[in-house]
Amino acid sequence: MFKIKFLPYNIEAEVFPEETILEIAMRYGIHINASCGGVGSCNKCKIIIEEGKVKGELIEGKYYKACATIPLSDLVVRIPVESEVDRRALLRKPKKRAQALVLEKKEPVESPYQKLYFQLNPPTIEENLADWIRLKRALNKQNISNPEINLNFLQKLPYTLREQDFQITLNVYHDPRKDRFYLLDIESGDKRNINLGVAIDIGTTTLQLELVDLNTGEVLAFTSDYNPQISYGEDVISRIEFARKKDGLKLLAEKVREKLKELIKELLRIAKRDLDEINLISVAGNSVMSHLFLELEPRYLREYPYVPATTEFPIISAKDLGLSSKESTLVQLAPCRASYVGGDITAGVIASLIAEEDPLTLFIDLGTNGEIVIGNKDFLICAACSAGPAFEGGGIKHGMRATSGAIEAVSIDPISFEPMIITIGKKKPRGICGSGIISLLANLFRVGLVDKAGKYRKDIKHSRLREGENGWEYVLVWKEESATGEDIVFTENDIENLIRAKGAMFAGYQILLESIGLSVNDLERVYLAGTFGTYIDLEEAITIGLLPDLSREKFYFLGNTSLKGAKFALLYKDTLLKMEKVVNMMTHIELSNYPNYMDYYMAALFLPHTDENLFPSVKI
Amino acid sequence: MFKIKFLPYNIEAEVFPEETILEIAMRYGIHINASCGGVGSCNKCKIIIEEGKVKGELIEGKYYKACATIPLSDLVVRIPVESEVDRRALLRKPKKRAQALVLEKKEPVESPYQKLYFQLNPPTIEENLADWIRLKRALNKQNISNPEINLNFLQKLPYTLREQDFQITLNVYHDPRKDRFYLLDIESGDKRNINLGVAIDIGTTTLQLELVDLNTGEVLAFTSDYNPQISYGEDVISRIEFARKKDGLKLLAEKVREKLKELIKELLRIAKRDLDEINLISVAGNSVMSHLFLELEPRYLREYPYVPATTEFPIISAKDLGLSSKESTLVQLAPCRASYVGGDITAGVIASLIAEEDPLTLFIDLGTNGEIVIGNKDFLICAACSAGPAFEGGGIKHGMRATSGAIEAVSIDPISFEPMIITIGKKKPRGICGSGIISLLANLFRVGLVDKAGKYRKDIKHSRLREGENGWEYVLVWKEESATGEDIVFTENDIENLIRAKGAMFAGYQILLESIGLSVNDLERVYLAGTFGTYIDLEEAITIGLLPDLSREKFYFLGNTSLKGAKFALLYKDTLLKMEKVVNMMTHIELSNYPNYMDYYMAALFLPHTDENLFPSVKI
Repeated sequence: MFKIKFLPYNIEAEVFPEETILEIAMRYGIHINASCGGVGSCNKCKIIIEEGKVKGELIEGKYYKACATIPLSDLVVRIPVESEVDRRALLRKPKKRAQALVLEKKEPVESPYQKLYFQLNPPTIEENLADWIRLKRALNKQNISNPEINLNFLQKLPYTLREQDFQITLNVYHDPRKDRFYLLDIESGDKRNINLGVAIDIGTTTLQLELVDLNTGEVLAFTSDYNPQISYGEDVISRIEFARKKDGLKLLAEKVREKLKELIKELLRIAKRDLDEINLISVAGNSVMSHLFLELEPRYLREYPYVPATTEFPIISAKDLGLSSKESTLVQLAPCRASYVGGDITAGVIASLIAEEDPLTLFIDLGTNGEIVIGNKDFLICAACSAGPAFEGGGIKHGMRATSGAIEAVSIDPISFEPMIITIGKKKPRGICGSGIISLLANLFRVGLVDKAGKYRKDIKHSRLREGENGWEYVLVWKEESATGEDIVFTENDIENLIRAKGAMFAGYQILLESIGLSVNDLERVYLAGTFGTYIDLEEAITIGLLPDLSREKFYFLGNTSLKGAKFALLYKDTLLKMEKVVNMMTHIELSNYPNYMDYYMAALFLPHTDENLFPSVKI
Repeated sequence: MFKIKFLPYNIEAEVFPEETILEIAMRYGIHINASCGGVGSCNKCKIIIEEGKVKGELIEGKYYKACATIPLSDLVVRIPVESEVDRRALLRKPKKRAQALVLEKKEPVESPYQKLYFQLNPPTIEENLADWIRLKRALNKQNISNPEINLNFLQKLPYTLREQDFQITLNVYHDPRKDRFYLLDIESGDKRNINLGVAIDIGTTTLQLELVDLNTGEVLAFTSDYNPQISYGEDVISRIEFARKKDGLKLLAEKVREKLKELIKELLRIAKRDLDEINLISVAGNSVMSHLFLELEPRYLREYPYVPATTEFPIISAKDLGLSSKESTLVQLAPCRASYVGGDITAGVIASLIAEEDPLTLFIDLGTNGEIVIGNKDFLICAACSAGPAFEGGGIKHGMRATSGAIEAVSIDPISFEPMIITIGKKKPRGICGSGIISLLANLFRVGLVDKAGKYRKDIKHSRLREGENGWEYVLVWKEESATGEDIVFTENDIENLIRAKGAMFAGYQILLESIGLSVNDLERVYLAGTFGTYIDLEEAITIGLLPDLSREKFYFLGNTSLKGAKFALLYKDTLLKMEKVVNMMTHIELSNYPNYMDYYMAALFLPHTDENLFPSVKI
């Protein structure tokens, strides 16, 4: 790992492979003006390489562009500034992501879907039990009693038994919730080694899938794509609305199933395996996504008094959902707690092991919706926060999803108020995604362009601060540098939306904690779930009051816990039962019904909060 | 009820409605020559009506034809004979059928397939449980826990609940073998009154069906037809052979299912009900019929060491078998004991309540195969006798099934050796069915035309006794009176086949009894199952040594116990479990493996038996 010394600040930085100098500087909170997103067109991010070798283009005889230069050795890099003793160094806030927590279980893998090998004694005239009775007795000896079987199985049985002299492999699924066995298939000989599963997270926006070996737990492939239902509605509410149209529900179900089938085939291509090798598919999704996937009527989820068709799901044949051609491939779903606390959260609680450990943990899943869980092995309490889609770029003028060209990190120079931006894929900026929005608001607040109430400081005169058609705004990218040919701006209205969203989240933490007689300071851990949690900058999120101001070591990002929980349910046989227990154990609080909620919410509509004592480290 | 005095014998007879005088005479063992089967063409059965009114045609100024004359008042009837003191009266053996035993249970009907009505509390904001959880809790209160549900059910649930303000009717099936509930359908409102079942006996030769109200037990319709598989083989062995051909098994399964579907529709037409009202179909059949119905490979049933694919059956969706368009209609089958002691016998044991009562009972099912059970509530022992199809007319030169034109009862005049016959449907005789064959042999033996060894007495000269192309034979019907234009004869070879068949049965009783240290005289009851049992004449069957020579009061005919057992399984919820217990309790004896079997069999190849002490009442 190379090292860079940044002058004039004398800051030592470590270099990750393939990082540009702009990205490294951004991580360390070192400001370099940059407005083209890393595409190399604005020529503003000029730096001088004083020592070492780089890959990059020399301009004007002595500069390199930070956004297009990659270290090839240890370096000394000088950033041209007016004065050696620059205030920037003092104001520097290095980006700090939460620590990654790798979610793994210590226990050995034991899937609920087992392949079991039997060498049965062939019948004799003295002991000529029927084939099925012979097998049933062998199963009984393995404590597999009263399994459900179907006609296909019985039809196959006599042939298969006699193919390899009564040596057979059985496909057996055990549903821990009913302690019930299902005998699904029979093959001759020893076929135990072929046993694949697919874990699926059905997000409102994104589908994520992993192909897993059910014997070893090894992940053989991963893939991801947008949920094709997006074309019929960005959020759960608009999808429920669409489902009310004639055949709307059927269409939404078909769309997501077709896409999943396609993605499963992609997994198989990557891993060079066959569709018929998949025996178990484990799904986690929020309540609406689970309903739509199964073609269950979702409208009562959103109509008062908010009733799901179901919160727990039977085992379903994957063939019936068009995901397999084999009758014996099963689909299991993570149970939901309530209309807006779904299987993704149950899966998340399971994956994060909160309910099995002592520390009081705040679990935050900031996806298209914001759900929170607080608890430990003794109790769990949860709520859905009506945070809206701001953290995914929704309701923000130039907000966008975290795709190519989205501004994902921002730094604003405290002296010049000039921005430094980084886009996803180093493309010309098209808009701002969730982490960029938080980053931008935190920076605007920190350099003093936005006040505690979330309003622009109109007394500061700067070319980027102006009154636009939607009121006051900060121009983050001039149209010359943007991919859209328009200025990319951040309006006061955007700020208001973002503050409402983070206020709803923070009031949520407080209500949940209050309901059990605790406060924010009692939290021992904060778990950030969802891909969002992976990219969020802790300091910035705390600066705007989205996350509580706790010791930074208490924060962990967990990645996609919905997917991980779905995978646990593939690999550990009691998972569905544990999920059911979590659902039963978890008290659900309907925040809007809670008397103090409005007070807490109103108090949180400031940066970082009306009550500054809650955010001692945020000193502006 | 009218009375007839028959002269010159001075025998008083009681008249059943619509009986002809020939039929009445046959019942009372009064011989009247008659060879046209009751069609009125032979003009031999002349009688004189001395007193009373009849419906019939006067011939030759003073006679009526017994076969075509029906009493309209009390009568005095004279049969023209040579002498007033006729030996016939002394030799007279009135026909004596076994008493009918009506198989009914005292307990109230409680089908395993229930329609349950619920008035659920609609959700409120304080109690907004998911629809399924709400229902599940209501079910729990009725001790219906962990039911199996499917996706269709869940998809229907939200709509149906809200159609009539959370008043619903559920279709619930309880499998007593696993104590497991299956939730199959949901309707809005109170739909408890619609709940039909079909009981089916799949015989090798005949299919019999009843449409039953599952709430009340009332039989709404009955129908019957041949098993269409007959075209592919008369007996189970030839069907197993046919099933080995390409697609043979599939074809046999399809044929019987299609015919059953047709017959079910016929039941519904008779009762003016709809296919969708049928919820449960209960089937009983022998092991081969059960295998073919379910398209289970039957070949190992007949290949050493004789192994069925299964002897117990899961619950199957009637839709999968093409018997219903509703997913929620179920099919249950009576379990089998062994390759040749099938579900028809299990059903029979259940219907006859043998296993619930004290008396030591011999249960005989004489269908296409002959199966016997001996036991009481403490033990059960069973065997299949390789009796062959003689009792259904198979292997008999002019044997035929019991259909229109079959000679079903015979009397032979001890002096003139002239026969008196009655055919089914009073049609011209086409052949002889099982009861007729027994009747014929018993008569031939009784009048001395056949000796103990089953050979014709060639020393007796009579026009009807002759050497034909297949050896010695008795001409029962001259070609002038037969429907076929051929003489209907009974050959020595036929007699041999019949004696082998009855010998196999009798040796079976003896082996079973010996195996438990008992003998024929220990039997307290003899139950005759199958339609055959209904028509058989006790005296005749004992005369030829087919039934043991016990007090006649010990004999009962039960009708189609396979169908009755299937019906019990529709109406009494624990029946399948009881059947399973019967199967487990019932010791199966493979007669051919039994050391003494051959000795017993050889000894039984006489009329009535080598050991005359076994048949004290048969004095020839």
